[in-house]
Amino acid sequence: MDCCVIPLRHGGLSLVQTTDFFYPLVEDPYMMGKIACANVLSDLYAMGITECDNMLMLLSVSQKMNDKDRERVMPLMIRGFRDAAEEGGTSVTGGQTVINPWIIIGGVASVVCQPNDFILPDGAVPGDVLVLTKPLGTQVAVNAHQWLEQPDRWNKIKLVITKQEVKEAYQEAMFSMATLNRTAAGLMHKFQAHAATDVTGFGLLGHANNLATQQRNDVAFVIHNLPIIAKMAAVSKACGNIFNLVQGTSSETSGGLLVCLPREQAAKFCSEMKSQSLGAGGQGAWIIGIVEKGDRRARIIDKPRIIEVPPRGSQVANQDNNSASPLPGPNLS
Amino acid sequence: MDCCVIPLRHGGLSLVQTTDFFYPLVEDPYMMGKIACANVLSDLYAMGITECDNMLMLLSVSQKMNDKDRERVMPLMIRGFRDAAEEGGTSVTGGQTVINPWIIIGGVASVVCQPNDFILPDGAVPGDVLVLTKPLGTQVAVNAHQWLEQPDRWNKIKLVITKQEVKEAYQEAMFSMATLNRTAAGLMHKFQAHAATDVTGFGLLGHANNLATQQRNDVAFVIHNLPIIAKMAAVSKACGNIFNLVQGTSSETSGGLLVCLPREQAAKFCSEMKSQSLGAGGQGAWIIGIVEKGDRRARIIDKPRIIEVPPRGSQVANQDNNSASPLPGPNLS
Repeated sequence: MDCCVIPLRHGGLSLVQTTDFFYPLVEDPYMMGKIACANVLSDLYAMGITECDNMLMLLSVSQKMNDKDRERVMPLMIRGFRDAAEEGGTSVTGGQTVINPWIIIGGVASVVCQPNDFILPDGAVPGDVLVLTKPLGTQVAVNAHQWLEQPDRWNKIKLVITKQEVKEAYQEAMFSMATLNRTAAGLMHKFQAHAATDVTGFGLLGHANNLATQQRNDVAFVIHNLPIIAKMAAVSKACGNIFNLVQGTSSETSGGLLVCLPREQAAKFCSEMKSQSLGAGGQGAWIIGIVEKGDRRARIIDKPRIIEVPPRGSQVANQDNNSASPLPGPNLS
Repeated sequence: MDCCVIPLRHGGLSLVQTTDFFYPLVEDPYMMGKIACANVLSDLYAMGITECDNMLMLLSVSQKMNDKDRERVMPLMIRGFRDAAEEGGTSVTGGQTVINPWIIIGGVASVVCQPNDFILPDGAVPGDVLVLTKPLGTQVAVNAHQWLEQPDRWNKIKLVITKQEVKEAYQEAMFSMATLNRTAAGLMHKFQAHAATDVTGFGLLGHANNLATQQRNDVAFVIHNLPIIAKMAAVSKACGNIFNLVQGTSSETSGGLLVCLPREQAAKFCSEMKSQSLGAGGQGAWIIGIVEKGDRRARIIDKPRIIEVPPRGSQVANQDNNSASPLPGPNLS
């Protein structure tokens, strides 16, 4: 499961909590803070939990940064994290900061729940429909953006994408990663979701497989459609398919929820996701597959349909206002 | 406060939680895991909380370790952490592991409490007595132990201590840091403690000052006695007083609780600490000062009495059975 669920000694309540921390992957420290927070909360949202009682922030300051960069970057990152927490109706009370070679940002989200506050991710039945609430391709977009400065890499992909399109895809990825999955969590209750998980490091197929393994019924997940940030499928192919994006194993950060819904609810879920999430930074949701009788595995069909998800309008002109030089962390490429 | 206390929406309950993570400071990975866990739980214990509903483990594996070291070291560290959690009557369900230049070990401790489960650290009154439940000097001992291999450092302290005594002090520090403050937390209730904190990075005086600042009454803390691991005061002096040990600001890791107790309870608290904690790795507790009327500050008197705390018997012969070469982390010296 995406969270741990601990039965408490008090009146049927459970403590649900999750933690996640990682290294910077976008250059804008404020957006990086938001992404880290969205990524932590996402594990609660995947269980249909819409409230969070408390967050802790986990932070390391890089010893490689000079004082000026540190004083400019770290407060922005912290503010981004706090702002996203506030957007999620919670706040950050506590945490820990250390010095480290690389910047670390992450946190802990905890909530005390009644049983009907969360949806155990094990109730998929044959006939259900699979819905995904964010497009794939964040890792490809982040890397392609770094490659703008690396001629040998850029030369491999420049036939399939323009610099402007890379910038737009990067922006789209950044906004998508910073978007909370909270709207989706709320709609999981309204439309009687049977199970869900969030798509992160193992990619769509990896997490779909994990989710399939946990099901009570003999089901298999079959994925037909892949909503992908525009042009990222072509970039992934052009650079030698190192990401395995259309194979479903390209790593995502703060990806969308993969939700199993009763067939008759899926279209309504998607339509309401679209109307509710547009204001909150979301792009909607896509029906990507079905639940069949099977042996608790997930697969993507041969030649899945690629849904090119266009960037949501051009904020690109103003990008990087807050950005420092690349933040100290591991080399992503 | 050492923890955050979040009022919940359910029946007067509060979520109390804390997080801490740091880098290895002893060479034995199993003991390092225990110390990290004891250090996390200590913040709960400082509030008189004896139970913990859940722990998360935060871990990073060093990219500088080869596969063999990693496979030998990390499972031991995790086992130490889990064993200490079990000793604390809780368990580790969840966490996160990343790759990092340095090893990181730490965690999160969370508990859902009724109001009488915890003691807010703000009730000291003039006439109270200050008690400390572990000896000081862990940082000095850990450094002195490293200096056995550094002739220029060793030459500065060899007139005041033997190699064997350094090893014994290091062992004592390691066992002391790995000891849970849980016994003390339980006795805080039995003997009506008015306030407490745990002694860690800011040293005894730093944390005493923090605690004094939070008091409801106009009080000051005056410290007369410093229980210190045997010979560490001399080592600290011989190496040029770089630690400020007897000045009270030498950093401690997983130090003891500093507890304000009613005068008539303090001796009984210490005596029961001694009888209860000996089996659990503790050495007892010491009356170190008094609470006076004052301006919410703490001070150590001129020429405090140094209580030399002898190591608890010689486990030194068998040391380092589990130890690898020094674990990747920052240079402590």
